[in-house]
Amino acid sequence: MAATAWWEALVAAATVGGTAGSSTTVVSICVFTGVLCLCLVAGHLLEENKWVNESITALIIGCLIGAIIFLLTKGKHSHIMRFDEQLFFIYVLPPIIFNAGFQVKKKQFFHNFMTIMSFGVFGVFISVAIVSAGCYWLFPKVGFGQLDASDYLALGAIFSSTDTVCTLQVINQDETPRLYSLVFGEGVVNDATAVVLFNAIKNLNISQLKGRAVLKVISDFLYLFATSTVLGISIGLSTAYVLKALYLGRHSTDREVALMALMAYLSYMMAELLELSGILTVFFCGIVMSHYAWHNVTASSRITTKHIFATSSFIAETFIFLYVGMDALDIDKWKTSKASFKTSISLFGIIILLVLLGRAAFVFPISILSNNMSGSSERVPITFKHQFTFSGVTSDPVHATIITSTIIVVFFTTLVFGFLTRPLISAMLPHHSVAPSRGHSTGSNSPKDDFTLPFFSTDEDASGSGIVLEQAKRSISMLLERPVHTVHIYWRKFDDKFMRPIFGGPQSH
Amino acid sequence: MAATAWWEALVAAATVGGTAGSSTTVVSICVFTGVLCLCLVAGHLLEENKWVNESITALIIGCLIGAIIFLLTKGKHSHIMRFDEQLFFIYVLPPIIFNAGFQVKKKQFFHNFMTIMSFGVFGVFISVAIVSAGCYWLFPKVGFGQLDASDYLALGAIFSSTDTVCTLQVINQDETPRLYSLVFGEGVVNDATAVVLFNAIKNLNISQLKGRAVLKVISDFLYLFATSTVLGISIGLSTAYVLKALYLGRHSTDREVALMALMAYLSYMMAELLELSGILTVFFCGIVMSHYAWHNVTASSRITTKHIFATSSFIAETFIFLYVGMDALDIDKWKTSKASFKTSISLFGIIILLVLLGRAAFVFPISILSNNMSGSSERVPITFKHQFTFSGVTSDPVHATIITSTIIVVFFTTLVFGFLTRPLISAMLPHHSVAPSRGHSTGSNSPKDDFTLPFFSTDEDASGSGIVLEQAKRSISMLLERPVHTVHIYWRKFDDKFMRPIFGGPQSH
Repeated sequence: MAATAWWEALVAAATVGGTAGSSTTVVSICVFTGVLCLCLVAGHLLEENKWVNESITALIIGCLIGAIIFLLTKGKHSHIMRFDEQLFFIYVLPPIIFNAGFQVKKKQFFHNFMTIMSFGVFGVFISVAIVSAGCYWLFPKVGFGQLDASDYLALGAIFSSTDTVCTLQVINQDETPRLYSLVFGEGVVNDATAVVLFNAIKNLNISQLKGRAVLKVISDFLYLFATSTVLGISIGLSTAYVLKALYLGRHSTDREVALMALMAYLSYMMAELLELSGILTVFFCGIVMSHYAWHNVTASSRITTKHIFATSSFIAETFIFLYVGMDALDIDKWKTSKASFKTSISLFGIIILLVLLGRAAFVFPISILSNNMSGSSERVPITFKHQFTFSGVTSDPVHATIITSTIIVVFFTTLVFGFLTRPLISAMLPHHSVAPSRGHSTGSNSPKDDFTLPFFSTDEDASGSGIVLEQAKRSISMLLERPVHTVHIYWRKFDDKFMRPIFGGPQSH
Repeated sequence: MAATAWWEALVAAATVGGTAGSSTTVVSICVFTGVLCLCLVAGHLLEENKWVNESITALIIGCLIGAIIFLLTKGKHSHIMRFDEQLFFIYVLPPIIFNAGFQVKKKQFFHNFMTIMSFGVFGVFISVAIVSAGCYWLFPKVGFGQLDASDYLALGAIFSSTDTVCTLQVINQDETPRLYSLVFGEGVVNDATAVVLFNAIKNLNISQLKGRAVLKVISDFLYLFATSTVLGISIGLSTAYVLKALYLGRHSTDREVALMALMAYLSYMMAELLELSGILTVFFCGIVMSHYAWHNVTASSRITTKHIFATSSFIAETFIFLYVGMDALDIDKWKTSKASFKTSISLFGIIILLVLLGRAAFVFPISILSNNMSGSSERVPITFKHQFTFSGVTSDPVHATIITSTIIVVFFTTLVFGFLTRPLISAMLPHHSVAPSRGHSTGSNSPKDDFTLPFFSTDEDASGSGIVLEQAKRSISMLLERPVHTVHIYWRKFDDKFMRPIFGGPQSH
């Protein structure tokens, strides 16, 4: 008797996958790994085609797999594995954001830093207001009015944060460095703002959403931003220092690579532990690591880290799109939703309209500032962070309707805007190809004209919805751009004199 | 009301780590990542010291962390995270074994293939018999006799399989290629045998353990070995073919690396899914990938894959030792065990003695065959696979006593034998340095004398317990060595003529 339990444990462990308890996990890992390989090969074969990218391939393959599982299980479910959203935050998101920080063109990113910040923060507030108010006004008109005020605000926050994952896949950093840094940087800041907004809305008494509360939200955001950044930078710097102090000149590639990867992951997890924004932290950690730590390791470590981070990010991205594809056919959710087809379509239409409107209200100023080259300004895929939030198991019909609408919105934005983005960019770039190439070629010697030019550009491209806001923001950004330029020059001096001798990196003078 | 649940889910997802539900995971990941970094740095600093290796550092640091947690939680537990053994099989083991296959010196390994096979299989059977019988005989004498026959057999199987992880860390493949391939190869085969034995013992009626049942076990093993190998080789070959057909000459490093890593992982998971030996499959997949696929990718992919696999393996190994160190102080287990201190020490002594005896009975013939150069023949760390099996949560006092004994054995073998192995090898190698260097320099042109020599060596080193067996085995291996040599020549011709043109790799003629 006593030995039976022991024996069972032994046998279960010795025959992993063989026993019933673990076989579901093994099967789903098998399917996901196999399908990921398929996506890689398909993505490569379709690479020449400018209308299709890897995200779309993964989405479509995910749908097909979902359909196959649906048929095999005779309509019981389309889902081989319930993906815990915690897994997403702990394993899938960090490599994507870290790699973005590691590979981002730092010069471009910091040149536009204040622009990114102001638009990332104010833009989200504006968009949340427009989407929330719009939903509050329009949802009852299509017979769907069972939500209360905080739900509308949550909807606004969810549909206002942009998806950095999609952006990274579609825009080419080398071809359009400025566009990339603006759109991507705004996405990162957006995400932090969304986290703060969620927490703020949760703690606020909705009926008293007045002056002091708004100030609280803004100060919360500034605190979160500052602490997350400081944490990321300090972990990045300590990694650089340890690598410089210990390993310089030795052939210990594996240890170096392991240390860099582990420290990067540690930065994300520590930020989450301290209730900061892990995304911001790991992003700045990536920037610091590529600026200092990367120069302290052996040549093969440099090649390995560069590709190891890009590959993890690539796999994580493909996995997300695949999962969303499978998720779309999940029958439980569609069944639970009691709303009619007409209502669903109306909700979907309203949300898409409001999202475009909310985005137009703050994205067009960025387009003008970046010399009208933002072909992807209309591209608004919903962040997968919130798509995953919505994907939680539910039996509430109101919730289910919102989920199905969200999935339609995700599909529509990824597929339609995804199809359109590349041709749009290539159609718009030839006329404005001077701007990105100038930003690329001037380098650090004369970054001045790179920044004065946007202010002399015409306002004609601004769409009606954003003119007032855009003008207000332009004056803000004009105030902000100059100090950034000065700060950059001092930073370079400080970097060369104090930072690089301690933490490593090439000496430019 | 309806919206509350939805809202809760949103907030929980938006503030990962902040809410109570997920904080335990975040804390434990933080601690493990941080301590892994510490181990890396400490391991590097202690690298010069020949008495200490990274495994021992990780074990000791794990113990210290366990003690700190124990003090911080005021004696409640020493464990920050219960490690599910499934996680070990799904995430930690595959990179270690795949990397072993990927980096193993194929020539050495296949030269000794039949030797490895015969000793790996028969050796485990002999060792199981000795340990089981010894425990059955000695356990009641120290007042610990509550186990039944199948438990004794399980104990035998657990303490008979060797730990490839330790072996890989202590023996240097470049200095002693033959020793490495023999000890490591035997470990891999051992592991497969142990899996088969577990399943066989489970399904057998113990009272009828006679002729036909033994035959069944052997045929099961051969089936498992053949199918696992074929699966691993076919996945490796398809990866090579896909890489050759699609990517040759293109600069798609990230996709190549991702495909290789995913296919390797897929091979392991598919084997587990089909109830084969994942370890064997992923090992052969690694061999095939390094032989063909690795030659079909870009130069930076080659550097990246080489280091990416080594790094993952390195992190996984360090993690295991760290975990075992923390696990050792787990109070629940020690409390549950009702056996006295004296009984525990007796059990520990008996197991160590029997393990050494069982190993001596089949390891010394290998020592003789490999020209007496096997300084590590007395090194018998328990495989962590079974250590983890034992670590499962339990409230059974008999089981708890066995677990505590197992932990002592793991500690003793890792620390004492770990400390001794390097000095022992360096003490024994100078006298026999001719043998390994010859094996290294002759290459494929004259592997003949490499194989005839062992049979002319003296028998004086054979310990008493193994003489009869060892002579029986020598005649088996003499029969087996010759065909291997012939097979190798034909294989080289076949490889150059048919395999390499299809699957890639350098053309040697």
